[in-house]
Amino acid sequence: MRYWEDFRAGDVFIHRSAPVSAQAITEFAREFDPQPFHLDPALENDGLLGGFCASGWHTCAILMRMIFDSYLEGSSSMGGPGVGEVRWLKPVRPGDVLELKSTCLETRASASRPEMGICRFTWDLFNQSGDHVLTCTGTNFFGRREAGAS
Amino acid sequence: MRYWEDFRAGDVFIHRSAPVSAQAITEFAREFDPQPFHLDPALENDGLLGGFCASGWHTCAILMRMIFDSYLEGSSSMGGPGVGEVRWLKPVRPGDVLELKSTCLETRASASRPEMGICRFTWDLFNQSGDHVLTCTGTNFFGRREAGAS
Repeated sequence: MRYWEDFRAGDVFIHRSAPVSAQAITEFAREFDPQPFHLDPALENDGLLGGFCASGWHTCAILMRMIFDSYLEGSSSMGGPGVGEVRWLKPVRPGDVLELKSTCLETRASASRPEMGICRFTWDLFNQSGDHVLTCTGTNFFGRREAGAS
Repeated sequence: MRYWEDFRAGDVFIHRSAPVSAQAITEFAREFDPQPFHLDPALENDGLLGGFCASGWHTCAILMRMIFDSYLEGSSSMGGPGVGEVRWLKPVRPGDVLELKSTCLETRASASRPEMGICRFTWDLFNQSGDHVLTCTGTNFFGRREAGAS
């Protein structure tokens, strides 16, 4: 079990995804973001996004799964309050394999909950060409191995 | 067709969702955020989140669908570059009906693309009890009815 005490500022976690499929892109889009450039795999060289690509929110959902698989699974995770600015730097295309670099920026005890600690991260996603496709900062809450003073 | 010129700073769009089902919460969680408090509908009075609730990223995906249904469908939307800080203020529970208030903060022409305009929004989600559950700012790109000077 990984507790709050096991994270340190400067820790880096690397995790690689399976390829993102065209079917996964269109399934997410049909439910949550049915814009033409997320629905039609045949759309090429079109508009600002250059054709068919994943919804930015789909990329965020994939990010969440990668965070889970990278360091949340088997941890004392208690959720999180939100994330900082999310930048979709490059479209995610079918077949892209994403690499997540999670950098722990800061850890601190919770002032109000002695059983909880706080970790801030920067999450960066890169595709198989090394293009930076997403950056975002966010906060994870974790249970402490030993509850501290409030 | 709604173009960039049809948005004005101060415009407010209100849109209401269908109830969020326990099944939708667990389906999203199994794929993207399989933490216990998003998977087990029987979990009550547990931990920081108080029991079973939607992944914050699921709430963001629902937000995206509500934005689409509210004012993106039938528009000249060209996508967006990202969003500002996302705050998950209250958990979203099964049965919650969400109301989206989209407030247009600013519209401006693109300096580099004469065929495009930019609109900044604040998006606020409330549940059926009036609790503020999510706030976030973001940018939408739209095609212009008449391309302007660059």
